[in-house]
Amino acid sequence: MIKAGIIGATGYAGAELVRLLTGHREAEIKWYGSRSYIDKKYASVYQNMFQIIEDKCLDDNMEELSGQVDVIFTATPQGLCASLVNDEILSRTKIVDLSADFRIKDVEVYEKWYGITHPTPRYIKEAVYGLCEINREAVKAARLIANPGCYPTCTTLSIYPLLKERLIDPNTIIVDAKSGTSGAGRGAKVDNLFCEVNENIKAYGVASHRHTPEIEEQLGYAAGEPVLINFTPHLAPINRGILITAYASLKKEVSYEEVKAVYDKYYAAERFVRVLEKDVCPQTKWVEGSNYVDVNFKIDPRTSRIIMMGAMDNLVKGAAGQAVQNMNLMFGIKESEGLELIPMFP
Amino acid sequence: MIKAGIIGATGYAGAELVRLLTGHREAEIKWYGSRSYIDKKYASVYQNMFQIIEDKCLDDNMEELSGQVDVIFTATPQGLCASLVNDEILSRTKIVDLSADFRIKDVEVYEKWYGITHPTPRYIKEAVYGLCEINREAVKAARLIANPGCYPTCTTLSIYPLLKERLIDPNTIIVDAKSGTSGAGRGAKVDNLFCEVNENIKAYGVASHRHTPEIEEQLGYAAGEPVLINFTPHLAPINRGILITAYASLKKEVSYEEVKAVYDKYYAAERFVRVLEKDVCPQTKWVEGSNYVDVNFKIDPRTSRIIMMGAMDNLVKGAAGQAVQNMNLMFGIKESEGLELIPMFP
Amino acid sequence: MIKAGIIGATGYAGAELVRLLTGHREAEIKWYGSRSYIDKKYASVYQNMFQIIEDKCLDDNMEELSGQVDVIFTATPQGLCASLVNDEILSRTKIVDLSADFRIKDVEVYEKWYGITHPTPRYIKEAVYGLCEINREAVKAARLIANPGCYPTCTTLSIYPLLKERLIDPNTIIVDAKSGTSGAGRGAKVDNLFCEVNENIKAYGVASHRHTPEIEEQLGYAAGEPVLINFTPHLAPINRGILITAYASLKKEVSYEEVKAVYDKYYAAERFVRVLEKDVCPQTKWVEGSNYVDVNFKIDPRTSRIIMMGAMDNLVKGAAGQAVQNMNLMFGIKESEGLELIPMFP
Amino acid sequence: MIKAGIIGATGYAGAELVRLLTGHREAEIKWYGSRSYIDKKYASVYQNMFQIIEDKCLDDNMEELSGQVDVIFTATPQGLCASLVNDEILSRTKIVDLSADFRIKDVEVYEKWYGITHPTPRYIKEAVYGLCEINREAVKAARLIANPGCYPTCTTLSIYPLLKERLIDPNTIIVDAKSGTSGAGRGAKVDNLFCEVNENIKAYGVASHRHTPEIEEQLGYAAGEPVLINFTPHLAPINRGILITAYASLKKEVSYEEVKAVYDKYYAAERFVRVLEKDVCPQTKWVEGSNYVDVNFKIDPRTSRIIMMGAMDNLVKGAAGQAVQNMNLMFGIKESEGLELIPMFP
Repeated sequence: MIKAGIIGATGYAGAELVRLLTGHREAEIKWYGSRSYIDKKYASVYQNMFQIIEDKCLDDNMEELSGQVDVIFTATPQGLCASLVNDEILSRTKIVDLSADFRIKDVEVYEKWYGITHPTPRYIKEAVYGLCEINREAVKAARLIANPGCYPTCTTLSIYPLLKERLIDPNTIIVDAKSGTSGAGRGAKVDNLFCEVNENIKAYGVASHRHTPEIEEQLGYAAGEPVLINFTPHLAPINRGILITAYASLKKEVSYEEVKAVYDKYYAAERFVRVLEKDVCPQTKWVEGSNYVDVNFKIDPRTSRIIMMGAMDNLVKGAAGQAVQNMNLMFGIKESEGLELIPMFP
Repeated sequence: MIKAGIIGATGYAGAELVRLLTGHREAEIKWYGSRSYIDKKYASVYQNMFQIIEDKCLDDNMEELSGQVDVIFTATPQGLCASLVNDEILSRTKIVDLSADFRIKDVEVYEKWYGITHPTPRYIKEAVYGLCEINREAVKAARLIANPGCYPTCTTLSIYPLLKERLIDPNTIIVDAKSGTSGAGRGAKVDNLFCEVNENIKAYGVASHRHTPEIEEQLGYAAGEPVLINFTPHLAPINRGILITAYASLKKEVSYEEVKAVYDKYYAAERFVRVLEKDVCPQTKWVEGSNYVDVNFKIDPRTSRIIMMGAMDNLVKGAAGQAVQNMNLMFGIKESEGLELIPMFP
Repeated sequence: MIKAGIIGATGYAGAELVRLLTGHREAEIKWYGSRSYIDKKYASVYQNMFQIIEDKCLDDNMEELSGQVDVIFTATPQGLCASLVNDEILSRTKIVDLSADFRIKDVEVYEKWYGITHPTPRYIKEAVYGLCEINREAVKAARLIANPGCYPTCTTLSIYPLLKERLIDPNTIIVDAKSGTSGAGRGAKVDNLFCEVNENIKAYGVASHRHTPEIEEQLGYAAGEPVLINFTPHLAPINRGILITAYASLKKEVSYEEVKAVYDKYYAAERFVRVLEKDVCPQTKWVEGSNYVDVNFKIDPRTSRIIMMGAMDNLVKGAAGQAVQNMNLMFGIKESEGLELIPMFP
Repeated sequence: MIKAGIIGATGYAGAELVRLLTGHREAEIKWYGSRSYIDKKYASVYQNMFQIIEDKCLDDNMEELSGQVDVIFTATPQGLCASLVNDEILSRTKIVDLSADFRIKDVEVYEKWYGITHPTPRYIKEAVYGLCEINREAVKAARLIANPGCYPTCTTLSIYPLLKERLIDPNTIIVDAKSGTSGAGRGAKVDNLFCEVNENIKAYGVASHRHTPEIEEQLGYAAGEPVLINFTPHLAPINRGILITAYASLKKEVSYEEVKAVYDKYYAAERFVRVLEKDVCPQTKWVEGSNYVDVNFKIDPRTSRIIMMGAMDNLVKGAAGQAVQNMNLMFGIKESEGLELIPMFP
C-alpha cells in the first residue's frame, strides 16, 4: 500500500486528489495538509466526504511528512514546493508537484513569466515533466515529477502527433482555450463569484498567460525547434472542463485518413487519449469526472489549415488524475489504477 | 457474473444504469435496448462511452431478452413493462422496473393518477417496492421489483423515522421538492430546452404530480394509517439532484438529541443514508454522482414544527443506483457493489 | 429633476438602482457612494456602464450628501443607515433605506434577530414600510422609507389577499422560498463562488432567517392578529429571481373563481402585480429584469390547503425597483416611471 | 407611428423584436405572425408578455400583411422570405429580413453553403446588408434589408477597422467564436436540451458553418480583396451572448496607441460600438440585453499577431436590435430609438 501525503488538500485540485486516492486500491492518504484548516475535519470542509473520511487537516510540514509517506503531492501555489524541497526529503520520498515550479527547464523563462525567484533551481533538471503519454519511461524512473498544467496537457496532447510528424508549421499555431471555473481555484475573489461567471464568457490573460511558455517548451520538443504560439484562455460558466481549439497551417496537402493515421500512431494504444471518429467534435461533458482526453481534428482545404480540438476534465487529467497516473508509473503499478472512471453524463 | 439487459438504455436513467453496471464487478450488460436507436452504436448516442462500450443498440423484445439474461431493467415510460411482462418471462429472469407500473398497490389509484389502464394488475401484489433501506428482506426474495420514484425515495427516507416513531402528525406533512432537469428525461421538448430552464425556477404539477400517491402510500405504511400530503415539485437549473424540504407539526416537544437518535436508530448502519451533523443542510452537489441520500432536520420551537431535508442524485439513488442496489440484494451479492461512488465536488 | 444619491452604489442592489435611475426620465444620480471604490470610475467597477456613466465613486458621507440631493438611497449593510440618519438630514432630504433598519416596528424583535443594537430607534415609528401596493398613501407622505426585504415583498404580496379576506388559517402558513445568488451580495465569500453554487441547490437559514419576523409582521397586519410562520429560503443557481411557494389551510371550501376574485380585488388595478391565468405557475425568468411580481395559486381539495406562488426579480421589485417605485410615490410622479421594463426572455 | 409586422414572432429572435418594439416610441406591432401558434394569445407563448400584449398570433401571409404595415420583419428560416417577397409587396412596404436569404451577393455561394435554390435571386442586388455602422447611408435609402447574421456582425465590427487600414494580413485571419444557446433557436432538439448544454462546451460546424462566406464577403469589402478565414463557432452554456476572439498577423510593427486610434477613428462616434479601455477584455454579460458591441484588442509582439475581441448580445445587436436599428434608419428617425437599453448585470 502506497502511503500518500497531500499538501494543499483543501483546494479544488487537492480535493480531487482526495477523491481519486480514496478510490485507489493500492494507495492510502496519510496526511491531509491544509494550512487554512488545520485541525478541522476534512469532511467538514468538503461535505461530500462525510462518513468517508474521518481525518483532520494537518499543516504543511513537508519535512515531517516525508518521514511518514512514500509520495507527497503538492497542490499548492507557485513557489511553495520549490521552497520546501531538499535532498533529504527527496531521499526519503517521491514528490509529484502540481504547481509550475519544476515544469519549465529554463529558470529565466520561469522567473520572467511567474515574476518570482526560483528558490531551488538545482532540482529543475532532475524533475521530469509528467505528461505520461509522452514521457512515460522517464516518469517511471523519477523521484520528482513536475505535473503538467491543465492547458498544457490538453494542448500538447492535441497537437503533439502533427508536430512530431512535421505535418504542421510550428510558427502558425494558435490555441484558443476555454476552461471551467474550478481552474481558478477556491479562493474567495469577486471575479469568481457565481453572479460574475454565470451567463458570461470572457477571455483573460490574453498574450500573457503563464501556461504559454510551458506549452511552447513542450511543443518545441515535438517540433525539434523553438515554437512561439498564441494562446488565449477563456473562462466558461462550467465547473469542470477544458476545451482547446487549435489552428495551424498544414505543410502539405493531406487527407483525413493520413492525419487520422498519425493520431492513431501515437494514441491507439493509449488508455486515456481517445481519438474520436470523423466529424465528432470533443465536448467537455463527455469526459467529465474521468481521466480521458478526447481529441479530434478537421482539415480545412479552403485555407490549408487544420483545426485540432481537445477536451478533458481540468481537475482530473489536467491535475489530480494525471498526478495519480504519474504516481502509478513511479511505483510500478497499473497505470490506470484508481483512474478507471467513466465520464458522467449528463 | 450476472447477465443484465436494459430496456430503455438510451434515456438518462438507462444511461446511468449503463454507467453503473459498466463499473460493477459482478455484472455485465448483454443487451442495450433502445427502440429509437436500433443498430446504432451505443457509444454514438452517448459519446462518453466511446472506447468503453462497443455494442450496438437492440430492440425491446423482452421475450427474447429474458432467455439471455438473469435480470432485466426496464427504464421506459409508464405502461411498457406492465404490458410486456408475463409468467414465462418471470420464470426465467428477474425484473427491476424503473417505471411506476408496479409501485402503487391499489390499481385504481394508479389508473386514476396515471390515466392509463393497467394491463397486468395481477403482478402488482407480487412486486416488491424496492426501497432497499426499508424493504431489504422482501427485496432479497423478490423476482419483480418496483423501483421507487425519485421524489418518493428522497421524501420517504427523509421522513420515515419520524413517522414510524410517531413524532410528527401525518396530516400536516408538506413536501416542497426541487429537481434537476435530467428528471424530465431526454425527450426533445421546448420546456426542457437550455434557454427555458437556465436562469429560471418554477413549480410544476402543483397538487397533481403523480408521485404524490406513491409517497402517500409509503408514508402511510410508516404511520400505520392513511396519509395525505401536499407535494410540490420544482424544476431547478441543474442536471442532477433532488432536494426535498418537508414540514410537519411535532406531536410533542422534542430535543435535537431525541430526534437525532431516532434518525440514527434507522440509519446509523445504512451505507447510503447519511444523517448530517447538527445545522448542516443537505446540498445536492455533495451527493452528485453517488448513491447517497443526505438527510437532516431542524426543529422550530416557535411553530412546533420540524423541517426535514433530504438531498440525493435523482439518477443514482433516485433511479439507476437504487436499481443496482436492488439487483445486488436479489442476487445475494454485496449491497454496495458497483455503488461505492464518491460524490464529485465541485 | 429629482437629484438622487446612492450610498452603497457598488453592491448588486446599488448597481441595479444605478441601472434603473439611469433610465428614469425625472431623476438623475448625483452621488455614487462606495466606501470600497472611492475615486474609482463607477464604470470600471461595473463595465456594463462604460460610456454611459462617467462619474467616480464617492464616500458615504450622508451629512454632506443630504445637502446636495433630494433623495438618498442607502443600499448598505444593516445598521449603517440607522447610525447615520438624524433630524437635520431628514429635514433636508428624503431617505429610502434598502437595509432592514426600519422595517420592523418592534425594536426588540429587530435587535434579537439581527443581533445588533439599534442606534436610532426613535425613527422607527416614523418610517413607512414601503410595500407600495399595500401602503401607497402612507408612502406618498413619508420622508423615511423602509424598503421591504426581497423575501418579504414576494411572500407578502402572494399571501396578503387571502389573509385579508380571512380565507386561510394564519397559523398554518409555510413559506418555501428559492432565491438567486445576487441576493447574497457581491462580497467575496467561498460559499458564493461559481463552483459552489453552480449545479447545486440547498436550504439555508432554516428556522432562523432574519426575514422571518419581517414577513410575520406584515402578514400580521393583514390577518389582524399575530402570525407565526415557517420560512425556509433556498439558494438556487441563478443570478436573479425569487420564487416563493407558500402553503396554508383553507378556512372553508372555496372555488377557484372565488379565490381568483379575491386576488383580482386587490391586484386587478395594480401595474406591477400580475395574477396569472388558471394553472399557470409563476417562473422567475418571466419577470427577470422587470418590476413585476407574478402570483398564482392552486387549491388542493384533497388536503383542504391552498398553494400560493409568487415570482419576481429580487434586485428589481425585491430591492431597487421597489425603491424607485417608492421614490416616485414620494415625489408625486408617475408610479411606474423608470420601471416600465419588459421582462427579458430568454 | 410606424406600423410593423413580424413573421416568425414566436422564435427567440422574433420574441426579442417584440420586446424591443413594445418599448419603441415610434413603432407599434400590428401583426404577430407565427405559423405554429395561429390564434393563440401571444402572451401564452411568451408569458413574460402577460398583461403587456393582448394580441393573438396570426399566420404568415406576407401579401395581406404588406397592405397593413409599413415594415415587415421576417425572423424565419432560410428561404422563406425569399420565396414570399415580390414587387407588389416591396412597393407597399419595407422589409427587414433576419434570415440569410439576401446577405450574400453571389447567389452561387449562397446556394452552395445553404444547400437550397434561391427562389428570387433578382432581389439580391437590391438588398442592402444592414450592418448600420458600415452601410448607414445605403440602409437609409433601402426598401429591402438583409439583416446581418449574429457571428458576422460581431466578427466584422471587431476586425473591420484594422483590415480597412491595412494593418493586418487578410489571409491570416482566424475567428474563434462562442455563442449562447438562444442562437440555436427554440426548436425542440435533443442537442439543445438543458442537460446536454449545461456544464458543457463544444465546437460545432467546424470549417463548414454557413456564416463563414458571409463574414468573408464583408471582410473582403474592407480589405479590398477576397478574404478566406477560419471560423469556428462554439456552443456555450449561456442563454445570450456572443464572444469572438480573432487572430491575425500584423503587417508592420504598431503600438497600442496606433491601433487604438484606428478603432477610435471608426467607432468614436458610434453609439453602439464601445472600444474598451486598455487591457479590458469584453465580456458577454456586460452587454446582455443591450444593443452594444464591446470590442478591444491586444498586440502580441512575440508573435507579431494581434488578438481582436468582440462581445455582444446575439439576440439584440446580433438580430432584433440591429433590425430595429435598420428600421430606424430607413424611416429617418433617431437611430437609437427603442435601443437605449442599459446592459443588465448581473
